[in-house]
Amino acid sequence: MASMKHLLGIEGLNPASVTNLLDLAESYALLNRSGKTQRDSLRGRTLINLFFEDSTRTRTSFELAGRRLGADVVNMSVATSSVTKGETLLDTAATLNAMNCDLLVVRHKSSGAPALLAQKVGASVINAGDGTHEHPTQALLDALTIRRNKGRISGLTVAICGDIAHSRVARSNILLLTMMGNFVRLIGPPTLLPGAIAVNGVEIFHNMEDGLKGADIVMMLRLQKERMTGGLVPSPREFFTYYGLDRKKLACAKPDALVMHPGPMNRGVEIDSEVADDATRSLIKEQVEMGVAVRMAVLETCARSNQ
Amino acid sequence: MASMKHLLGIEGLNPASVTNLLDLAESYALLNRSGKTQRDSLRGRTLINLFFEDSTRTRTSFELAGRRLGADVVNMSVATSSVTKGETLLDTAATLNAMNCDLLVVRHKSSGAPALLAQKVGASVINAGDGTHEHPTQALLDALTIRRNKGRISGLTVAICGDIAHSRVARSNILLLTMMGNFVRLIGPPTLLPGAIAVNGVEIFHNMEDGLKGADIVMMLRLQKERMTGGLVPSPREFFTYYGLDRKKLACAKPDALVMHPGPMNRGVEIDSEVADDATRSLIKEQVEMGVAVRMAVLETCARSNQ
Amino acid sequence: MASMKHLLGIEGLNPASVTNLLDLAESYALLNRSGKTQRDSLRGRTLINLFFEDSTRTRTSFELAGRRLGADVVNMSVATSSVTKGETLLDTAATLNAMNCDLLVVRHKSSGAPALLAQKVGASVINAGDGTHEHPTQALLDALTIRRNKGRISGLTVAICGDIAHSRVARSNILLLTMMGNFVRLIGPPTLLPGAIAVNGVEIFHNMEDGLKGADIVMMLRLQKERMTGGLVPSPREFFTYYGLDRKKLACAKPDALVMHPGPMNRGVEIDSEVADDATRSLIKEQVEMGVAVRMAVLETCARSNQ
Repeated sequence: MASMKHLLGIEGLNPASVTNLLDLAESYALLNRSGKTQRDSLRGRTLINLFFEDSTRTRTSFELAGRRLGADVVNMSVATSSVTKGETLLDTAATLNAMNCDLLVVRHKSSGAPALLAQKVGASVINAGDGTHEHPTQALLDALTIRRNKGRISGLTVAICGDIAHSRVARSNILLLTMMGNFVRLIGPPTLLPGAIAVNGVEIFHNMEDGLKGADIVMMLRLQKERMTGGLVPSPREFFTYYGLDRKKLACAKPDALVMHPGPMNRGVEIDSEVADDATRSLIKEQVEMGVAVRMAVLETCARSNQ
Repeated sequence: MASMKHLLGIEGLNPASVTNLLDLAESYALLNRSGKTQRDSLRGRTLINLFFEDSTRTRTSFELAGRRLGADVVNMSVATSSVTKGETLLDTAATLNAMNCDLLVVRHKSSGAPALLAQKVGASVINAGDGTHEHPTQALLDALTIRRNKGRISGLTVAICGDIAHSRVARSNILLLTMMGNFVRLIGPPTLLPGAIAVNGVEIFHNMEDGLKGADIVMMLRLQKERMTGGLVPSPREFFTYYGLDRKKLACAKPDALVMHPGPMNRGVEIDSEVADDATRSLIKEQVEMGVAVRMAVLETCARSNQ
Repeated sequence: MASMKHLLGIEGLNPASVTNLLDLAESYALLNRSGKTQRDSLRGRTLINLFFEDSTRTRTSFELAGRRLGADVVNMSVATSSVTKGETLLDTAATLNAMNCDLLVVRHKSSGAPALLAQKVGASVINAGDGTHEHPTQALLDALTIRRNKGRISGLTVAICGDIAHSRVARSNILLLTMMGNFVRLIGPPTLLPGAIAVNGVEIFHNMEDGLKGADIVMMLRLQKERMTGGLVPSPREFFTYYGLDRKKLACAKPDALVMHPGPMNRGVEIDSEVADDATRSLIKEQVEMGVAVRMAVLETCARSNQ
């Protein structure tokens, strides 16, 4: 495929580059299941996981992805408290870059931090989640999971439900899904929906039953209490009544509709355990599995651009 | 040897499986001392250290064991505070399992947590200490250390001294030592002994001098203040007077009796430095060394069952 | 080169051993830039990073150095609070040693801690900074950076500026630079200069402009507020006025004088951003890069002594 120096967001990709990443990730998914094959395509390369926000899952997923390709992986968890100036963020990045880092995976609470770093360092920068902006590897792993189970990643109706206003996962998924020709519905209370959606082909629903009608995929989001400000935080019980996915609400979607969640779940808040653990309807575990495969594909593709 | 999918406790092993593990561990002990040979038997396999309780020693020992066999090792220290429901423990495990984890090493403050996980995940689960239940690799490394120094792991008199009620180390050792045909004595104040010992061949002593008479092995335990509840915590000075091992008390045991401690030691509380550092009597450093070898043997044996 | 069992300080090295280390490090620097070659000279060897003080940079640099040579690298960050007795430091070291650790990299807040450990363990001990004593790999990486840019590491005038009294970096650099035949000037207020400098060829200046005259290298230090005791901590603004390096003060040095800083920088306190980021005058990024190369050379050289 064409080389890709950084992965800062789904914005910047095109349908061909998404398809190439998914195809490569699919090949890694098969290798990972076999469990014994290890490729050495990143041998001698250095991957640094630079996490300014905690995220055990995403960090572990990138760490495993890097190790399975043979990279030297170093984790750096930076207490946000010690980083108070933009200068310091750049100094940290410059330091890592000077250690001949090839791949810099960055999570930061500020939207745009990875893009800023990408201008300053020689390493490839991969956005592992920045503020309320983007989380592109999550959207790619969701797309791969959908494609494996629906046979395609176009022409589908995908309902994204819950705390959309605070969700970089939602934002990256909206961009990817509409770009690939799917129909996206956003479902949530007015307080948790963005003021305006500047993307064609997106519909907004405040009533979950209405929004789920005809959906092929029901994508739940984590209620991000830690990102909410002001006095509009819904109570968990109230939220579940109106926007929690249970078997009854799921029945409004297509009979073969599949359920997704980026994790970690607030069981009983945005999703009921009966639905989350339904082996025939829930793709939640497969999403995690595809996460490693997609990150391998992203790391490999970015590393090629540095050769 | 016969395959072993999980290692949840000494309970569930038989004398033949213990002997096989010790024999394999002995071969790794020799390799480790030579320092330069590295086996690749776990190359391409993923080992995750999932520690819900801090333990730098045990975590490091498993990490080294996995790396020396060529595994991809990822550490996850989970703050207990964020895990409040059984659901969440299982979600965490399901997530790791979905990353195609082959070997899941678990330490948890709740007895039975590893067994619960073993029912839910495809990975082999190795118990690295659960509540007051078991710590099987500690008992295996103690057995290997004894066998190397006494030439056998049967027919010996082993005195286990101190805070037995709160000790998973004691529990696993009692099970292993009696199963292999040794005589076990438990020495401690009534408040630190379990209410009832349902194992044949175990004697209880409240007077340390009496209990040590004729002992081949004196196995001290760490005073687990953090596990004690209620108002019965002994003062360190009082504890040392009655149950701390010093040269004088050790003289009650056999002239060639050897001293063990699982570490980390409270010097001057349960053991005197003169005894702990006695090169001819103390096996404490060798226990640590055998810890890596035993964990290599356990990982290798469990991994075989997944092939 | 002659074998070197430990690296406890620049004290104990001679000019030939410094040159040998720098030559080896230079070869690694070239390999690191090429990015793809990985040597296996430490394959099967165990490196433990034992950090009693936080230092993300130095720890990462040693971790990368070890991994690039194929070692099994394990990080242990020990909360200083849990280590209250010298006994415990030794117990920790004995434990690591018993795990057949080959290379023990130690940072500790007490001067002399690495030397104490070196007497007790079989592993090679590398001092990664101890109290106000030494930080030898920093001095070596500074020397390599100077040699690459000035073509030699002798006969130069090097001005070391700032908080010299609390700086192990300054101490190691003074020892190395004078041993190799350079002229060293120390610049700072009386409160931040050591009471007496017992090294030949070192001059002291309280006026920065005077001290910089004719300097080939201007080596700034981090203002170590955390190490200062008593009421003599200068205000950042006052400190910058008199001892902060800006373009105006730098003009007092030779026209081709180069600027160094061990990082992390307090921008606007000891150094101005305009100078720190000047691509033609500042060597700060190259120092970080040389850090990995120098640590590879040190690890490799110490490991040879254990064969």
